[in-house]
Amino acid sequence: MKCVSCKEDYTRCDAGTCRECYEEASETEEELKREIDELKSKVSFLRFWAPLHQLSNRFATPCFTDVVLMASGDGCGEAVPVPAHKAVLASRSPVFRAMLENEMVESLSGTIKISDVSYDALRAFVNYMYTAEACLDEQMACDLLVLAEKYQVKHLKTYCEKYMISKLNWENSLVNFAFSHQHNAKSLLDASQSLIMDNMDKLSKSEEYKELVEKDPRLVVQIYEAYLSKQVNTASLKDCSTKA
Amino acid sequence: MKCVSCKEDYTRCDAGTCRECYEEASETEEELKREIDELKSKVSFLRFWAPLHQLSNRFATPCFTDVVLMASGDGCGEAVPVPAHKAVLASRSPVFRAMLENEMVESLSGTIKISDVSYDALRAFVNYMYTAEACLDEQMACDLLVLAEKYQVKHLKTYCEKYMISKLNWENSLVNFAFSHQHNAKSLLDASQSLIMDNMDKLSKSEEYKELVEKDPRLVVQIYEAYLSKQVNTASLKDCSTKA
Repeated sequence: MKCVSCKEDYTRCDAGTCRECYEEASETEEELKREIDELKSKVSFLRFWAPLHQLSNRFATPCFTDVVLMASGDGCGEAVPVPAHKAVLASRSPVFRAMLENEMVESLSGTIKISDVSYDALRAFVNYMYTAEACLDEQMACDLLVLAEKYQVKHLKTYCEKYMISKLNWENSLVNFAFSHQHNAKSLLDASQSLIMDNMDKLSKSEEYKELVEKDPRLVVQIYEAYLSKQVNTASLKDCSTKA
Repeated sequence: MKCVSCKEDYTRCDAGTCRECYEEASETEEELKREIDELKSKVSFLRFWAPLHQLSNRFATPCFTDVVLMASGDGCGEAVPVPAHKAVLASRSPVFRAMLENEMVESLSGTIKISDVSYDALRAFVNYMYTAEACLDEQMACDLLVLAEKYQVKHLKTYCEKYMISKLNWENSLVNFAFSHQHNAKSLLDASQSLIMDNMDKLSKSEEYKELVEKDPRLVVQIYEAYLSKQVNTASLKDCSTKA
């Protein structure tokens, strides 16, 4: 028989679907693609401007702004204000919402000071709240994750975690493990821990390990506990299958 | 052979795909579904609040607003202001953007008067600009299409046209044809015209036809021209196929 999709001949043992199911699957695929187009169009409508070009560093300048954010932490002189809208910040972050709705210093003065952040990271953070997009590298992903956790911008936090998970390897797994623990990033924590578990033989020889034992020994204990727990579980699974 | 999808037996003449193509199609479907989930999450993040409940009529009250829109046209006393943000209006509508960026009466006074619109339609229009959602019935779809055309909110116009096309039938096709012509709604125009073409035998007997001949005879001419053109095309296609 000839496959209607790849047009190759196939035999009974390689049988896939009947024609009816194939046609249904094609229709489903078309419907899903239409739904994707509609959602993309919605995103285009709702974001305030198109995401910035990868090569240019120019963020759009919003108009009718009513608040500025100031980065402090660059360690290099005058902070440059990042203009924004209270309404946008409040709708993306419950922390900003509380800050701005109650008559706190920030809402009255029209300036929100953000500590321990670079100007670039702050601009990227604000831009994200208008476009749901950010241009990530490993440093930016860390900086944005910290901000996302601090201001409870869940969508951004998830975005950064996904990126950082994609960049995980044995060499950076401990650093990521410590970082994710510090900033309550559960997905990244689980992924780093998992990678460490697969490389326990190399663990105690690494520089990062020695530093972590000094800096946060309880975190190291957590690794060993997880490892032991995994061994116990694997052993009991083996028992169950030999008995069965 | 058994279909891996519906588990039914099928014969050679009902063959669909081979197993490899079936598995590839399943993976593609999974990828598309993941993409849909990510896009839905992005929409959730970017809209200002969740769409209103179908049964309740309560729109969210935005905070930190800097402009109000006033409906005039209800014909029943004091206009109730609809609060909004210049930044949101300007990002969704080039007409609002021009109005607000230049020092026109509206941007200076902080009030935008909208004529010939009901309060309900205006609230729904503003709400759309924050959520990309609207609760449509046939009246609301017309009202919102008019506003969308006037203020060049393309996404909303498309949304209304789609809805109105879904409600097209012979009885309302002429009214829709005239309406779409008046408000430059090409998709709706083409769809109404197409339906009229399929019902030319009933055309001259309908009340709407007689009214339209009185009100806008050139529009009626357009219908006949399209009809004639269609007949000529169909005739020449027939010629081509008989010759071939």
